Amino acid sequence: MNFNEERQKRTEYIEEILKRYLPKKEGYQKIIMEAMEYSLMAGGKRLRPMLMLETYRLFGGEKKVIEPFMAAIEMIHTYSLVHDDLPAMDNDEYRRGRKTTHIVYGEDMGILAGDALLNYAFETAALAFDEEDADCAKVGKAFQVLARKSGIYGMIGGQVVDVKESGHAVSGEVLDFIYRLKTSALIEASMMVGAILAGADEEVVGTIEEIAGKIGLAFQIQDDILDVTGTTETLGKPVHSDEKNEKTTYVTWKGIEKAKDDVAAMTKEAVDGLEKLPEKDGFLRELLISLISREK
Amino acid sequence: MNFNEERQKRTEYIEEILKRYLPKKEGYQKIIMEAMEYSLMAGGKRLRPMLMLETYRLFGGEKKVIEPFMAAIEMIHTYSLVHDDLPAMDNDEYRRGRKTTHIVYGEDMGILAGDALLNYAFETAALAFDEEDADCAKVGKAFQVLARKSGIYGMIGGQVVDVKESGHAVSGEVLDFIYRLKTSALIEASMMVGAILAGADEEVVGTIEEIAGKIGLAFQIQDDILDVTGTTETLGKPVHSDEKNEKTTYVTWKGIEKAKDDVAAMTKEAVDGLEKLPEKDGFLRELLISLISREK
Repeated sequence: MNFNEERQKRTEYIEEILKRYLPKKEGYQKIIMEAMEYSLMAGGKRLRPMLMLETYRLFGGEKKVIEPFMAAIEMIHTYSLVHDDLPAMDNDEYRRGRKTTHIVYGEDMGILAGDALLNYAFETAALAFDEEDADCAKVGKAFQVLARKSGIYGMIGGQVVDVKESGHAVSGEVLDFIYRLKTSALIEASMMVGAILAGADEEVVGTIEEIAGKIGLAFQIQDDILDVTGTTETLGKPVHSDEKNEKTTYVTWKGIEKAKDDVAAMTKEAVDGLEKLPEKDGFLRELLISLISREK
Repeated sequence: MNFNEERQKRTEYIEEILKRYLPKKEGYQKIIMEAMEYSLMAGGKRLRPMLMLETYRLFGGEKKVIEPFMAAIEMIHTYSLVHDDLPAMDNDEYRRGRKTTHIVYGEDMGILAGDALLNYAFETAALAFDEEDADCAKVGKAFQVLARKSGIYGMIGGQVVDVKESGHAVSGEVLDFIYRLKTSALIEASMMVGAILAGADEEVVGTIEEIAGKIGLAFQIQDDILDVTGTTETLGKPVHSDEKNEKTTYVTWKGIEKAKDDVAAMTKEAVDGLEKLPEKDGFLRELLISLISREK
């Protein structure tokens, strides 16, 4: 199999896991299960569970205990998009080429669907305690990392500063803070959880956190680049939105050529960091490189 | 010490725990820590952590492992109020006699403060894995119960149906469903987590769940009664809101006298259930009885 086939195979496996962990659509509260499915199954690259799985495999992991965490991280990523799109936040009507959750289900259900996905992420991850041969201490540790990186010292913290600083220019330092928390933190969680559950020691988990941080930054800067160079058709969302919102981005800060160079440089650093490890994973290396040239 | 002094002592202990687990107000995202503190430290009965602590003690628990869970359950309760008060939900400007979180911090920060409290609740509970002598399997089990009872099969599920069915009359069956999920589920979680962490066996945890379910129902019906008989001054929120919103409540369904009788009967059943256990806790008994005659 070539890289694209390998990637497709993994994406299908992840989609199968997501479907398996989604709640049955039943009961008086059925509408919330529908809204959760609508937002979670809207497509997307499934990058976070893919990085988690691949890091888990990199360190020799081969049990089912990773699966609930793979579902959980994608649920957390998805809830953050659902709440980001709300009228009081970015007020977006389209995402991945489809109407956003609050447009389809109403604003109240949009809020509740986000809450439900966040809560259900932890509920799902907690199923890992029941997995046969699960190492309770490792699962507990993975839980701590997942929760911390999703919260005020991670993704939510970045989102808070992004919202607070919107509508005016921000310094490079603040921009860097936002990117590290809003985007990198969840990528860090993905790879760290994979490493922890596979039994990597603390120092190695620290190395993985650093590598993941660079991947997250490169990923976010590429997003800024695509907002300038991409098309609505390919991205499934409006382009030039940053310019319209007079938003400081890495591109407005450093210029598009420098931004492209930095994405390549950060990705190379991440790949080099991986190469230094005794463990090898050709797919992971190719996945990181593919992210530089992605068009959506 | 008499009952009121005992209760006051426990309330102060809980407030001390909440303050201890609240994040430091620092960093670019400081505003979210402020909003979290504003909503969490707005007073309230602290009933859920109090029931958790007392159930833990009832079964002989005496370690620190309960404390992060006590903080977590109050954070979950608080986030649900913050999101309930949002303009797209109940659109309330006052709660416990103070302006609601989104009024003070803006609607975007209201959404994010709720998200932050929910996420931080799990982040805080996960600290229990690090407590000295913590039994990992018991903490994992407590985690599962906390997450499930807070989510779509618990509190959020009840809230979803409450929102969906608002603005028109609902059947007694639906009303019962809403109350059991929206209010009882978190009371059940409180007492079950206390029992689990203290080492009660599965059957006993089931008995506690049943008792807690009755307490939750009685508590919610008493809320409906107070909306009719209470004053804004005592309650710290507008009264007659159910009537204004043409909302079906236990009082509109069964009449106020029957509602009062049922609160007393359900409380008696809960107290009787506790009395049947070999373990005894005089404070818990008095706490339950005090809830019937509460004025706020």
